[in-house]
Amino acid sequence: MHSPSEQNYIQQLSIDCVIFGYQDKQLKVLVPKLNFRGDFWALPGGFIDQNESIDEAAHRILESRTGIIDIYLEQFRVFGDTGRTNKPFLERLIELNEETLGANRFNQKEFEWVTRRFISIGYYALVDINKVIPQKHEIDESIGWYSIRQLPPMIMDHNEIVARALDTLRSNLDEKLIAFNLLPDTFTMREVQELYEAIFDKPFARNNFQKKILDMNVLERLEKKYTGAANKAPYLYRFVR
Amino acid sequence: MHSPSEQNYIQQLSIDCVIFGYQDKQLKVLVPKLNFRGDFWALPGGFIDQNESIDEAAHRILESRTGIIDIYLEQFRVFGDTGRTNKPFLERLIELNEETLGANRFNQKEFEWVTRRFISIGYYALVDINKVIPQKHEIDESIGWYSIRQLPPMIMDHNEIVARALDTLRSNLDEKLIAFNLLPDTFTMREVQELYEAIFDKPFARNNFQKKILDMNVLERLEKKYTGAANKAPYLYRFVR
Repeated sequence: MHSPSEQNYIQQLSIDCVIFGYQDKQLKVLVPKLNFRGDFWALPGGFIDQNESIDEAAHRILESRTGIIDIYLEQFRVFGDTGRTNKPFLERLIELNEETLGANRFNQKEFEWVTRRFISIGYYALVDINKVIPQKHEIDESIGWYSIRQLPPMIMDHNEIVARALDTLRSNLDEKLIAFNLLPDTFTMREVQELYEAIFDKPFARNNFQKKILDMNVLERLEKKYTGAANKAPYLYRFVR
Repeated sequence: MHSPSEQNYIQQLSIDCVIFGYQDKQLKVLVPKLNFRGDFWALPGGFIDQNESIDEAAHRILESRTGIIDIYLEQFRVFGDTGRTNKPFLERLIELNEETLGANRFNQKEFEWVTRRFISIGYYALVDINKVIPQKHEIDESIGWYSIRQLPPMIMDHNEIVARALDTLRSNLDEKLIAFNLLPDTFTMREVQELYEAIFDKPFARNNFQKKILDMNVLERLEKKYTGAANKAPYLYRFVR
């Protein structure tokens, strides 16, 4: 997986990234699948170098495992139960891949290092799927966007980490709407509503939704969108600079 | 301070607690002062035992350093810059207290353990100052409530940790209002407004404030408060169960 070493990395501390993607009115999550027998999916994760901040580590890990750079990535929660360990997963992986992996992949010291209890700092982001091209790491068989409704079963507590990231995304969406940069330069109220409906996985009443969004005082109303049918044309909006 | 040891604690990871207190329309923070020459203030903090979850660690540390138990304590942010280390503070403390502390207080291994780079998980709570009696730890000279406007200069980045905790408290106050258990069983709208004004350190317009709070749909209106002057008596409220 990595080359863990006491000298380089902080022990027993990891970072896991939940990258939400939005496309065609749907919310998805970016999940790599490890290139081993046994169907192992895991969030893009890794360790913290002694010489980098946790934010720097999160960006480096994300780039290394997904190819994604320059996005708004934010810590949201620490996962620190005593039972968090890679051990059952790694033992199963080694058992299934013995001929190719065997005891050579980890020496004993590395195996012990990586199978101790880990506390993990969760980071999350929300990106426009049309604007990023994920690239898999050499340890991965593939990397792909999975609907939030049909996530694969991931190792450890990674499905739970996604669930908590989704709670945070929902709680913070109003204030992060601009930072996430999910909407085009100008957009209709309907486009905003579709984004909210995808993230909250429920419909909103149009009038109430419009009022709520306008009350946030972050939108500026422009001319009507040209649709050919002037009467029903919706207004265009943009974010106040 | 503690008896750090590789065997017992997770390395390079700590917990710091920001305990906000509310009393007489004022917001305060609970800060112990270390019992050494040199005026060192530090948030109640400590390390994570290998056999406890981070939440368990936070409660244990808080009880040990302040005597406070059974409160709603929540993680809010990880502080993980590369420059975070106790070293300058501990060197200064040892220098100032050489005759009583000397080299005996830490052996070399312990000193190295405790002066490495630390990443700290911040926890926060908001309590009714009338309901808790802080008790100082033996390492502390005193423990006291300091106005948020006049905090003492604390070690490391602890003043910054308080500032970030205050941001979180403000962002989450609406949804945590019940959990924090700051108001009596029945209360007036004015009492809610005074609490918000203390936490946000600014006045709110009465009508707007009342509308905002009632729109949260968490309050149930009861009879008017008996004040002797029936006309001007304010309504009492309680939280919907």
